[in-house]
Amino acid sequence: MLIVMTPEATAEEIAIVLDRVESLGFQARALPGAQRTAIAVTGNEGPVPADRFESLGGVREVVRVSAPYKLVSREVKPEDTVITFANGVRVGGDGFEVMAGPCAVESREQILETARVVKAAGASFLRGGAYKPRTSPYAFQGLKADGLELLAEAREATGLLVITEVKDTESLPLVAEYADVLQVGARNMQNFSLLEAVGRVDKPVMLKRGMSATIKELLMAAEYIVNAGNAQVMLCERGIRTFETMTRNTFDVAAIHMLRHLTHLPVIGDPSHGIGLWHGVPALARASLVAGAHGIIVEVHPSPADAMSDGPQSLKPYRFERLMRELEAIRGAMRGLDAEAR
Amino acid sequence: MLIVMTPEATAEEIAIVLDRVESLGFQARALPGAQRTAIAVTGNEGPVPADRFESLGGVREVVRVSAPYKLVSREVKPEDTVITFANGVRVGGDGFEVMAGPCAVESREQILETARVVKAAGASFLRGGAYKPRTSPYAFQGLKADGLELLAEAREATGLLVITEVKDTESLPLVAEYADVLQVGARNMQNFSLLEAVGRVDKPVMLKRGMSATIKELLMAAEYIVNAGNAQVMLCERGIRTFETMTRNTFDVAAIHMLRHLTHLPVIGDPSHGIGLWHGVPALARASLVAGAHGIIVEVHPSPADAMSDGPQSLKPYRFERLMRELEAIRGAMRGLDAEAR
Amino acid sequence: MLIVMTPEATAEEIAIVLDRVESLGFQARALPGAQRTAIAVTGNEGPVPADRFESLGGVREVVRVSAPYKLVSREVKPEDTVITFANGVRVGGDGFEVMAGPCAVESREQILETARVVKAAGASFLRGGAYKPRTSPYAFQGLKADGLELLAEAREATGLLVITEVKDTESLPLVAEYADVLQVGARNMQNFSLLEAVGRVDKPVMLKRGMSATIKELLMAAEYIVNAGNAQVMLCERGIRTFETMTRNTFDVAAIHMLRHLTHLPVIGDPSHGIGLWHGVPALARASLVAGAHGIIVEVHPSPADAMSDGPQSLKPYRFERLMRELEAIRGAMRGLDAEAR
Amino acid sequence: MLIVMTPEATAEEIAIVLDRVESLGFQARALPGAQRTAIAVTGNEGPVPADRFESLGGVREVVRVSAPYKLVSREVKPEDTVITFANGVRVGGDGFEVMAGPCAVESREQILETARVVKAAGASFLRGGAYKPRTSPYAFQGLKADGLELLAEAREATGLLVITEVKDTESLPLVAEYADVLQVGARNMQNFSLLEAVGRVDKPVMLKRGMSATIKELLMAAEYIVNAGNAQVMLCERGIRTFETMTRNTFDVAAIHMLRHLTHLPVIGDPSHGIGLWHGVPALARASLVAGAHGIIVEVHPSPADAMSDGPQSLKPYRFERLMRELEAIRGAMRGLDAEAR
Repeated sequence: MLIVMTPEATAEEIAIVLDRVESLGFQARALPGAQRTAIAVTGNEGPVPADRFESLGGVREVVRVSAPYKLVSREVKPEDTVITFANGVRVGGDGFEVMAGPCAVESREQILETARVVKAAGASFLRGGAYKPRTSPYAFQGLKADGLELLAEAREATGLLVITEVKDTESLPLVAEYADVLQVGARNMQNFSLLEAVGRVDKPVMLKRGMSATIKELLMAAEYIVNAGNAQVMLCERGIRTFETMTRNTFDVAAIHMLRHLTHLPVIGDPSHGIGLWHGVPALARASLVAGAHGIIVEVHPSPADAMSDGPQSLKPYRFERLMRELEAIRGAMRGLDAEAR
Repeated sequence: MLIVMTPEATAEEIAIVLDRVESLGFQARALPGAQRTAIAVTGNEGPVPADRFESLGGVREVVRVSAPYKLVSREVKPEDTVITFANGVRVGGDGFEVMAGPCAVESREQILETARVVKAAGASFLRGGAYKPRTSPYAFQGLKADGLELLAEAREATGLLVITEVKDTESLPLVAEYADVLQVGARNMQNFSLLEAVGRVDKPVMLKRGMSATIKELLMAAEYIVNAGNAQVMLCERGIRTFETMTRNTFDVAAIHMLRHLTHLPVIGDPSHGIGLWHGVPALARASLVAGAHGIIVEVHPSPADAMSDGPQSLKPYRFERLMRELEAIRGAMRGLDAEAR
Repeated sequence: MLIVMTPEATAEEIAIVLDRVESLGFQARALPGAQRTAIAVTGNEGPVPADRFESLGGVREVVRVSAPYKLVSREVKPEDTVITFANGVRVGGDGFEVMAGPCAVESREQILETARVVKAAGASFLRGGAYKPRTSPYAFQGLKADGLELLAEAREATGLLVITEVKDTESLPLVAEYADVLQVGARNMQNFSLLEAVGRVDKPVMLKRGMSATIKELLMAAEYIVNAGNAQVMLCERGIRTFETMTRNTFDVAAIHMLRHLTHLPVIGDPSHGIGLWHGVPALARASLVAGAHGIIVEVHPSPADAMSDGPQSLKPYRFERLMRELEAIRGAMRGLDAEAR
Repeated sequence: MLIVMTPEATAEEIAIVLDRVESLGFQARALPGAQRTAIAVTGNEGPVPADRFESLGGVREVVRVSAPYKLVSREVKPEDTVITFANGVRVGGDGFEVMAGPCAVESREQILETARVVKAAGASFLRGGAYKPRTSPYAFQGLKADGLELLAEAREATGLLVITEVKDTESLPLVAEYADVLQVGARNMQNFSLLEAVGRVDKPVMLKRGMSATIKELLMAAEYIVNAGNAQVMLCERGIRTFETMTRNTFDVAAIHMLRHLTHLPVIGDPSHGIGLWHGVPALARASLVAGAHGIIVEVHPSPADAMSDGPQSLKPYRFERLMRELEAIRGAMRGLDAEAR
C-alpha cells in the first residue's frame, strides 16, 4: 500500500503518518519525490485499513499496490530513478551511458590500455572483474585485491567510474571501498544475504538477472536491496537460459521494455553475455538502446584472442568505437522524434 | 559440397558438371548468382571426390560446405537473396519492408479499413489469416475461402501485397491462388510434407520459427523448401518458448543477427507474437530493425478490443503510424552511418 | 458442459436431449459409459443455460466442465478409457503394455528378427517407422510403402500388433490400412489438419507430446482427434526441450502423473526419446511404470551400432529382456500393495 | 589426471608422488579407496606429463580424466561414496534413505509431531527449514536459531538425523553446530563462497541442483566442495525450470540416472519441489527410487492447509505412510531381481 502525501505536507505530518503505520504493526518507508512524498507500507499480508490514514493531515490518497514488489514499482513511484555520480554522470531518465572494459582485470597494462580506449570512444564507466565467480574451481578466479587497485589506478588515469563485481559478503567491504558501482552477478541474484548486505552500503548497485529468473523475480530481488535501505539500484538484462545452443544465452530484449514499464529503476543491457559472440554484440547493443535501456555494459579487450576469460565475446577497440558512433546516431534520430512529438 | 564455376563458364560446361555429379550418385542443383553460377551437391553422407570435378572446364573451385544446411547457407551463396514482386517491392538486401494487418480476417469492413490505414502509413504487405490454426478445436478457425476473397479485394483497393497462412497441403492450391506470400506457421515449421509442397509452388514463402526450434532447425526446414525447388524463402523470428511467463514468447532478437550471419535468405521479425502485448510491440519492432531484419510483420487492428484473436497484441492505427515514423528515422540514421563508412 | 443421464435413461430420452442442445445452437456428443451415458456440449463460448436441460426426462445432472478440453477430461468421463484390440490386447485401465522395435524399418531381416525378439520377451506391439520425418531433407526418410509391407509380414509372423507413424494426410489411407495404431509424431502434435484426419479414421491413435507443448496443449490436441470422431486415443510423453544438453530431451515423468489425473485416455512413456542414451532407457522405463503409465514404447535394435537412425538410444535384445523382467517384478510388487489396500 | 597407486603402495611412495606433482606446479589430492589410493592432479589447463609419474615407485597407471570435474567423477573413483552417520545410518551404495518433514520449522508442536510421524513410518532424517531463502523480502524467513533448537529437540526425541538449509556463510557456524547434514539450496548452487565454506566444515552436505543448472554444472559445484576438503557430498535433483506451468518445476528424473552414471556421490530425489502438488509426490518418489536414487527428501506436514510455506506440496502423514510401504515393496522387488542376477 502507498500513502501519497500532498505537495504541501509538512515534515510533521509525514512523521505522524509514519507513526500511525508502525503503531498498526506494519513497516513504513518514506519515498521522497520531486513533487511530493509517498510512504510505502509493507509487512502486511492482509489488507491495511486505508481509512486509518485518509483522514490524517497532508494525506492526498491511499493507493493499493497490486504488484508483490512495492518499493521498486512504478505504481509506487511513477517517475524514473536517476542515479547521479560525483563526476556528474547520471544513469536513468533520458540518458544512455556505456560501461565498457574487459571481462577480468588481467594486468596493469591491459586495464590501463582498455580504459583509455573506451574513455576516448565515449564510455563513462570502466568494467572489469577483480573477483570472478567461475563454474570450475580450477579456472582463473581474478586478481582480487590487486585487481581492485588496478581499477582504481585506471580511474585515476581516465576519470572513468568503476563498476566491478562483488561475489560475497566477505569481500564486500573491500570492493565497496574501490568500486563506484557494485555489480551483483547473475548467479547471486537470489543470494538474499548478499542482497541485504549491498542494501546496507551507500554505493549504487547493478543487479544482473539470473539465468532462469523471471522478470518478476528480478524485481523482487531488487526489492530486497531497496528494502534494506539502498535505493540506488540498476537492473541488468544479460540473457536467459533456453534450449538454443548457438548463442551463449538468449537475450530477452523484451525484458528491457517490460522493466521500463514496471519499475522506475534504471535498466542496462549486457549484449556481450547476451549472445556470447563478438560479431553479434553491436546488434544486441543497438537493440538494447531502441528497446529503452538506459545504458549497456559491454566487453572490450585490446587482444580478445589472449583474454583469460570471455575472449570470444569481447570487442576489439576499433569495433567498439564504431558501435559508439552507431549508438549516437540512433539516439540522435530518436531524440529528433521525441522533440517532434512534443 | 559446392562447385563454383568461373564467371565465363558456358551453359554447356555447367551441364557437364551436373551430369558428372549425377553419374556419381549425388544430386546437383545449379544456383545462378549475379557473378557466377555455383552447383550445390547434396545427397552425400560421406565425402564427395572433389578431384573428379576440379579438372572439368569452367570450374573455378570445389568448396566443402560445413553446415548441414547447404542451399540456404551463406557459404554456398554469399550475397543476399532479394525477392522481387510484380509491383516492384523487394524483400532482402538493403530494404526494410513492413507487413501489417489483423491477426485474422474478420469482415469486409475490418480488412478494408485496416488495409487502407497500413497502406497510408507505409506498409507494403497486408497480413491477415484466413485459415487459422488454433490450440482449441472450439476456437474461431478463420473465414477460410471467404477470407481469401476479402484479402484479394483489399489488395485490389490498396495495391498492397497479401501474405496469409497456409495450414495444410489440402488448402495450399487455393491459398496459393490468392496469396502473394505463403506463410508457414510456427506449429508447421517441421511439417515436412507441407514444406515440400510449398517448395513446389512458384510463390514466395515466409517460414516462421517453431516455438522450440533452434536456429539450425529453422535453417534445415528452409532447406526442405529450397531443395524442393522454391528458392524464394523468408525466415521469421517470432519468439521462442521459455520459462518467462510475463510475455507471450521470448523474442530471440539475437536470432535475427545469427540468421543474417548464416544465410542469404531475407529475415523478418514478428514483434507482435514476440511479446504478445501491444505496448511492447514498438520496442521489439525497433529492435528487429537494428539487429538486421529485412522487415517486420506486425498486427494492427482498427479496434483491438473487438478482435476475434490476438487483440491484446494488436496496435491501434495511430500507434502503428507513429512506429512507422520511428523506424524511418532510425533507418535514416543507420543509412547515414553506412554512407560515411564507405 | 456435460449432461449426465441416469442409468435408466432411454435412447429416446437421450435423443431428445441431443435435439435440444442443437436447437440452442451448440454441438452435442453422446459419450456412452459403462454405467450411464453423458452428453458433452461444446461450441459455446459463453454459458449454456443448464435449466433448459435439467427438467428433461432421464437427465440426472448438468455439470459445468472447467477445463478447456472437454471430451478428453476426467471431469466428463471419470473412468479410464480402455482400447481393446482384435487379439484381445487392451491398453488403458490396469494393464501395462510394451511397444518395442527399431526406430526405422530398415530391412526384412532386421524387422523380423526384432519382432521375434521383442515378442519372446513379452511385448505386445511392434514399433517401426516406415515414414520418417527427419530434420534434414538429406537424411534417410524411411522405406515408406515397402516398410509397411514388412511390418505387416512381421505381424503375421509373430502376432504382434503394429504401431507406426503417419506423417501426413497424403499417406494416411495407406498407413491406416497396415497399422494397428497410428502414431502422430511430436512435430505434428499441432498439425491440426492431420489431427482431424486421424480423427475420422477407425483406428487407435497414439499422439506424442510436442517438444515444447504444455500438458494442456497436448490435451487440446487430443481433443481435436476425439472431437473429429475417434475416441481411441493414447497420449505419449517423450521428453520436452530444455536447456539441458546431456540428454536428448528432458523426460517429464510428472506429465505421466498429471495426464492420469486429468484425462481418462491411456498414457504411454517413451524412455528412448526421453533420454536418447541406451543406458538410461531402463531407468526411465521403470519410472514411467511407477508414475502411472499404461505402457511404454521403446527402441530395440539387433545391432544398434548399425542402425540407420537413433542407434545410440536403442537397446540390444538382451538388455530389453532384462528390462521386461524388471518391469514385471515391479508391477507385481505394486499389484500386491493394491490388493492389500482393498 | 589421475595417478592410480598399486594396492601395495606405501605411504612414503604416495608422499613422493604428491611432492612430484607439486614440484611441477600442479595441485595433488590423495583419494584413499577401499583397494588402493589414487591421486588426483588438478590445476592444469594443458596436459600433465604422465611419463614423469609412471616410473615412480608404487604407481600402477596414470589416467587422463576427460571430464572437467575430477574429484567427484566416477572415472577417478569408480566405487560409490557411502556417507556413514554416528547412529549407523548410511547414505549411498545399496541403501535408500528417506528424509521427511515440513518445509519450515513453525512451532515446537508442529516439528515434534511431524518428527514422530515420519520416524514411525521409517524415515531416517528429519527435514525442516530454520533459515528460509524466500523470493519476497516480506515473506516468512524462518525461525532461525529458535528453529535450530527445535530441530535438535526433535532429534533428541526421535533419534532422527537432522538436515536443514544453510543460506549464507554468516549463519554457517551455528547451523553446522545443530545439523547432521547441511543443505545448500538451489538458489545457492553457484554461490561459490558458500560452497567453499561448507567444503571446510566436517559435516555432510546435500547440494541441490539450481533451477537452470545443467548436470555438468551441478557436478562442478560439488567439485568446489570436495576440492575445499569435504568429500561427504550428496547431490539432489529437485526439478528444473522449463516452459511447463502446470507443475512447479520439471522433475528431471533422467538426471538421477545420469548422476549415478557420472559420479560416485550419493544422489537424492526431491519429489515435493519436483512437482509442487501433493498428489503427484508419490509418483515422483517412486520414480526417483527406480531411476537409481539413494534416497528422497519429502515434505510432510500434519496440517498442510495451515503450513506457512509449501502447503500444497506437503503430504499428510497417512499418505506418507502409504508411500513408505510402496517404496519398500518396490525395493524388495528390485533386490529380488539383483539377487537372481548374481
